[in-house]
Amino acid sequence: MSEGLKLQDKPVVSFLGPKASYTHQATLGAFNEQDFTLNPVITIEDVFASVQKGTAYRGVVPFENSSNGSVVFTLDLFADLQQKYPDIIVCGESYIAVQHCLLGHHSDRDTQPPLSLSGTSSGPGVIESPMSSGAVTPTTKEPVPQKPTARPVGDLSRIKKLYSHPQAWGQCKVFLNTYLKSVEKQDVSSTSRAAQLVAEDDSGESAAVSSIIAARILGLDLLAKGIEDRGDNTTRFFVLKKAPSSSTSASATVEPTSSTAAASKGKADEQAGTGDWKTLVSFTVDHANPGSLAQSLAVFAKYGLNLTSINTRPSGVENWNYIFFVELKGKKEEDTEDGPVNQALKDLDSVCRAWRWLGSWENRLVR
Amino acid sequence: MSEGLKLQDKPVVSFLGPKASYTHQATLGAFNEQDFTLNPVITIEDVFASVQKGTAYRGVVPFENSSNGSVVFTLDLFADLQQKYPDIIVCGESYIAVQHCLLGHHSDRDTQPPLSLSGTSSGPGVIESPMSSGAVTPTTKEPVPQKPTARPVGDLSRIKKLYSHPQAWGQCKVFLNTYLKSVEKQDVSSTSRAAQLVAEDDSGESAAVSSIIAARILGLDLLAKGIEDRGDNTTRFFVLKKAPSSSTSASATVEPTSSTAAASKGKADEQAGTGDWKTLVSFTVDHANPGSLAQSLAVFAKYGLNLTSINTRPSGVENWNYIFFVELKGKKEEDTEDGPVNQALKDLDSVCRAWRWLGSWENRLVR
Repeated sequence: MSEGLKLQDKPVVSFLGPKASYTHQATLGAFNEQDFTLNPVITIEDVFASVQKGTAYRGVVPFENSSNGSVVFTLDLFADLQQKYPDIIVCGESYIAVQHCLLGHHSDRDTQPPLSLSGTSSGPGVIESPMSSGAVTPTTKEPVPQKPTARPVGDLSRIKKLYSHPQAWGQCKVFLNTYLKSVEKQDVSSTSRAAQLVAEDDSGESAAVSSIIAARILGLDLLAKGIEDRGDNTTRFFVLKKAPSSSTSASATVEPTSSTAAASKGKADEQAGTGDWKTLVSFTVDHANPGSLAQSLAVFAKYGLNLTSINTRPSGVENWNYIFFVELKGKKEEDTEDGPVNQALKDLDSVCRAWRWLGSWENRLVR
Repeated sequence: MSEGLKLQDKPVVSFLGPKASYTHQATLGAFNEQDFTLNPVITIEDVFASVQKGTAYRGVVPFENSSNGSVVFTLDLFADLQQKYPDIIVCGESYIAVQHCLLGHHSDRDTQPPLSLSGTSSGPGVIESPMSSGAVTPTTKEPVPQKPTARPVGDLSRIKKLYSHPQAWGQCKVFLNTYLKSVEKQDVSSTSRAAQLVAEDDSGESAAVSSIIAARILGLDLLAKGIEDRGDNTTRFFVLKKAPSSSTSASATVEPTSSTAAASKGKADEQAGTGDWKTLVSFTVDHANPGSLAQSLAVFAKYGLNLTSINTRPSGVENWNYIFFVELKGKKEEDTEDGPVNQALKDLDSVCRAWRWLGSWENRLVR
């Protein structure tokens, strides 16, 4: 057992920071702070490295966003062209609604409703009509202007400056145009950094477009909740663990159980039960051999495995050669070679150039 | 025929600008300025829009980079979730080596070699050894430091400031660390913008990491050529044209020939001959139907069509539904329904939810 996993210590879960990031939120949803030490790191690669080295028991990284698609940095780390992370596998997933909030400081005359993690913010202090009417006036270009679904709690007239990540402005256009149209917007590196800057400014003249978790962690007031234009923007996160090298390319290795792992499992992590599992596999094909990609994919169909997504990244070996990532419904069994995923991987071995099993985990997507 | 295509006028080719961008270089390689008006536009979407509206005869957009992978903006425009560009198809491709150069102003005492578009820059004024020796000193972390493959032409000691796109710094690390280690680096929006800023500064104290085409167009001196760490970094561009709506989803529509098109075809555009063609197809599947993705892909295998790449983007219809982009070796025939691509598309219609033929064009990749 490696240094980071002494039995007396709480197991470390590393996640893409900073504190109060959406990945932090996903991590808090999967691992409770009583049983785990949650450790923010600077890059996605730092998460992979900490799990590979064994200084972290688990790692949490973003994998894809429902609007923006795959996180290519994460895919490239799974592709592992420099063979630095051969033992990293996925053992869980987590879905977090990207719900932007307006965070700041309530003025003394505002009624301050308690911070609620669910439901719509309303009650004393709710402004019933847009303060800046221009944005909801019908124009030739937009005859039926969209109305904001969220309303501010309290008076926003003190706010002179807004901080957020550039992507967030575009995702909250309607709310910002309606309530904060002429306020200066300053780009910063992350929504959690935006919240930090506002937390450091006591004047009450700044606000951040950030997450509800940032409000909680940094002690900021929630001036409006769910201010994004589209309510279904969701990011999917993977929980990573370290597996023995051999298990990622052989089909019937029984994984050793860690005593720490058995004692304190995370919620998104390795629960058995529903029988609804997902598996991630990467492979490369011989591009000189026509049909090798189709043959590789046909292997999964042969065993009735439903492919749910495919991703492609440059293979790094030669230009215009790719590494393919296939996600499918099913589980690589550890105690038998007869499972359909195990059999498909065996067949895959004869038609592709190289392949790697990147983990099987329980489906957490509720449709 | 639309307004932009009067017979007296030269046909317009719109491309992702600004002038002197790599897309401009790809456009110049495919369309000569005697026969075409080359028109830089601001965004990739502007290229799609100009071709769809008919104000441009052809459009040129980046599609993928050998190191960084697909250009998701271009994929999303092909996905066309708002149905704004239903008639856009690919009719050609072009590969451009991303060769970074150091551009600036020679000092008077330098010998100025003529600007050469091929071969290695050397001759009078070549600095034979790194001016800053620190970067090539072996250290514990890097016992065998990489040496730069390119050498500066002339004296770089006047340079106080460097401009480039943030990606370029990382791609030219070895050269910059060796010859310009302590020089201030300023990020700008594109490598061509960097060159513009240097062209406007007569002091000789600034230089840009940019393209050879930028040197030519803006009249800058080539201070070093091919300064990137990896010599095989290549970007692939697509030439777009407008097809009648019906031809993109029916399998046997003969495309009308434009008289302008017949008179002046671009080099990357619609040449017949080698019999080596590629086709791009997008499709969506019913995610509730297990195996529908595999069934859709099997259609291509049935007709012996070699899939060369697959890309995935969010479908925009529902979270975690995708639109798939398949590229394959083969051509959709216009005068028969019997071609393998035509037959595969017919079969695809019965297993996927929706599909779209996005063009067939002659392969330009020389391996």
